[in-house]
Amino acid sequence: MASKPAASETGDPLLLTPGPLTTSRTVKDVMVHDWGSRDQKFIDINQAVRDEIVKIAGGTGTHVLVPMQGSGTFAVEAMITSFLPRDGKMLILVNGAYGQRCAKICDYNDRAYVTYETPEDTPPNVDEIGRILDADEGISHVFAVHCETTSGIVNPIKEIASMVKAKGRSLLVDSMSAFGAMPIDAGEVYYDALAASSNKCLEGVPGMGFVVCRESALAGTKGNANALVLDLFDQWKAMEANKQWRFTPPIHVIVSLHQAIQEFLEEGGQPGRGGRYANNCKVLVDGMRAMGFETLLPDHLQAPIIITFHKPSDPNFHFETFYNALAEKGYLIYPGKLTVADSFRIGCIGRLDEGHMEGALGAIRDVLTEMNVTNCAPAQAAE
Amino acid sequence: MASKPAASETGDPLLLTPGPLTTSRTVKDVMVHDWGSRDQKFIDINQAVRDEIVKIAGGTGTHVLVPMQGSGTFAVEAMITSFLPRDGKMLILVNGAYGQRCAKICDYNDRAYVTYETPEDTPPNVDEIGRILDADEGISHVFAVHCETTSGIVNPIKEIASMVKAKGRSLLVDSMSAFGAMPIDAGEVYYDALAASSNKCLEGVPGMGFVVCRESALAGTKGNANALVLDLFDQWKAMEANKQWRFTPPIHVIVSLHQAIQEFLEEGGQPGRGGRYANNCKVLVDGMRAMGFETLLPDHLQAPIIITFHKPSDPNFHFETFYNALAEKGYLIYPGKLTVADSFRIGCIGRLDEGHMEGALGAIRDVLTEMNVTNCAPAQAAE
Ligand SMILES: Cc1ncc(COP(=O)(O)O)c(C=O)c1O
Ligand SMILES: Cc1ncc(COP(=O)(O)O)c(C=O)c1O
Repeated sequence: MASKPAASETGDPLLLTPGPLTTSRTVKDVMVHDWGSRDQKFIDINQAVRDEIVKIAGGTGTHVLVPMQGSGTFAVEAMITSFLPRDGKMLILVNGAYGQRCAKICDYNDRAYVTYETPEDTPPNVDEIGRILDADEGISHVFAVHCETTSGIVNPIKEIASMVKAKGRSLLVDSMSAFGAMPIDAGEVYYDALAASSNKCLEGVPGMGFVVCRESALAGTKGNANALVLDLFDQWKAMEANKQWRFTPPIHVIVSLHQAIQEFLEEGGQPGRGGRYANNCKVLVDGMRAMGFETLLPDHLQAPIIITFHKPSDPNFHFETFYNALAEKGYLIYPGKLTVADSFRIGCIGRLDEGHMEGALGAIRDVLTEMNVTNCAPAQAAE
Repeated sequence: MASKPAASETGDPLLLTPGPLTTSRTVKDVMVHDWGSRDQKFIDINQAVRDEIVKIAGGTGTHVLVPMQGSGTFAVEAMITSFLPRDGKMLILVNGAYGQRCAKICDYNDRAYVTYETPEDTPPNVDEIGRILDADEGISHVFAVHCETTSGIVNPIKEIASMVKAKGRSLLVDSMSAFGAMPIDAGEVYYDALAASSNKCLEGVPGMGFVVCRESALAGTKGNANALVLDLFDQWKAMEANKQWRFTPPIHVIVSLHQAIQEFLEEGGQPGRGGRYANNCKVLVDGMRAMGFETLLPDHLQAPIIITFHKPSDPNFHFETFYNALAEKGYLIYPGKLTVADSFRIGCIGRLDEGHMEGALGAIRDVLTEMNVTNCAPAQAAE
């Protein structure tokens, strides 16, 4: 009965999380080299990554890519503090942890803000955003999270962008978990800056973030930043001048991202990548519902990134046992803290396909049997 | 005549730079895997890295390691802004670019400072430091660079530390390019914090820095930082609580650093690693002097990290030609901007030994012949 645990191409457990992800073998293999950070070979790879991401964003000719060492939050804090002037004021749209984090960043950096908060399963009302902007002329910028990874909800970024533009304010987007998988074309969605990272839907390894910046907006950000390393304007100007990073770049991560981008393009770019994820999501949700599980979100609000399931009412269900048993079978689901509802989360991004999702569903069925869980419906009907 | 260019174990040019470096094959091979950032396997590796670096620093029981995503400068800015309170004042010892960078960081972060600057080939006078501290009671902290990589000079860090302690002030050390190769035992050199990174003398790949902190000093830094991502206190508290990073860690870089540390310990730790580098340095300097080159620094001020050579007076010597010809032979020397003197620099750290240094000397001789350079002595006698 004890079959071999599921494994990736490199023999590792499959990561059903919102990143770091299971990546392809080739994305990791390219890291087994050394490069000089000021050598032409690396400089060319770095430039290709910058150009290709701008192209993926639909911003060629209007936007530029400023990469940032560190995790995604480094790119987000760099974006906020470089774009929001010290006397600016941010309207932060909050329906999860990453909206909250923007407020924390503003607190740290002494930037004024107001929040418009909705529950974790509720997108902001776009007309209400308009009313808030009308009522407070001091608000210069709006911060929105594209896919709020906390619940997996997709926020109406296109409508938000139109409203913010109509009201003459500037939009900053955290598209960390959505960029590359969900459409956000810079030609259609007007923003000043958008932050994402290497290790989400582009399927690279973690270690760098990046900010897609509308060049004309970026040009006006000189002197805004209040930390040297997080100054996007300075990073941009230096990189334009000599194509090099200001400080030692995470070379292996960048070379790996370069490979990941080639594989992204081979898959057909955003439609191809997003299509695979959407299918992963559907297979997973259908399979879980067949077992009696319920999702936190209705399908039309669900991003194909990470899915929140209500905890089963069955008293035999203990999350830690469930998590560990799945891990032994080669599936690492998201162990992070739960959200509003008593729930757990499973990601469907990374180098995973329908077969992996079906494998995970099989493992979940087996684990539930082992745990003697028969009732997977939540205690109350989903709110 | 055209022999195969020199190459590392993985077929790459040899990096004769102060980092990123030529690393061992095994340090890179371990990156060909995926890990969950919240999974026990990775958490254990991360904890081992933290404990081992504190041990290497000689700080077990008194010091803790706070890692920081990004390059070394991220760790330095995190250290400065987390340790220097907003109403503190720094005395910055400057004899090169990295002392200057501390001043820039203080400017960005609105921290008061004064500098004590000496020429790039001159260490600070320790008595003068004492006098400056006596004369200005407002100075709460002193910032010193251990090996100033600009010239390759080693500053008298032990004597500086004693003076700063005697005057009742706090010391912050940038030991980026020296840590692991040059002695700086936390039991003998009293500091509040010391910053270094993965890709210097520990011979890992780039992507993270770290700060060795005296725990009792770190405990008093709450609320000092003015950027979320650079808050060492917050990073420390969070990591103590659940052994996890606050934000996605650069997993592959950390796992690679873990392997690099095992190889560091196998080599005999700092004495072993430093001994190999000292020999590399001696072979290189002796060989270059035999050709007529002169070093910027006298031997007693030379760190075995990177060596600055005066530019030959021979009119046929052009640095770019020299650099490119050496690159074609598989040796990448430091292409960065020159320092005070008209000079160039060659690093001797990384997975390189005497044989590699002799190979580099052979290549240099060949290139000089090709370039028709006969007089390698500098234009004027070395200052
Ligand atoms: C929407 C969003 N923003 C920001 C982040 C932060 O990224 P990181 O953990 O790389 O700092 C994440 C991470 O999952 C995210 O999903
Ligand atoms: C002494 C010193 N400090 C700081 C740094 C900055 O490190 P990074 O380039 O990784 O930001 C360096 C890099 O060479 C250094 O030598």
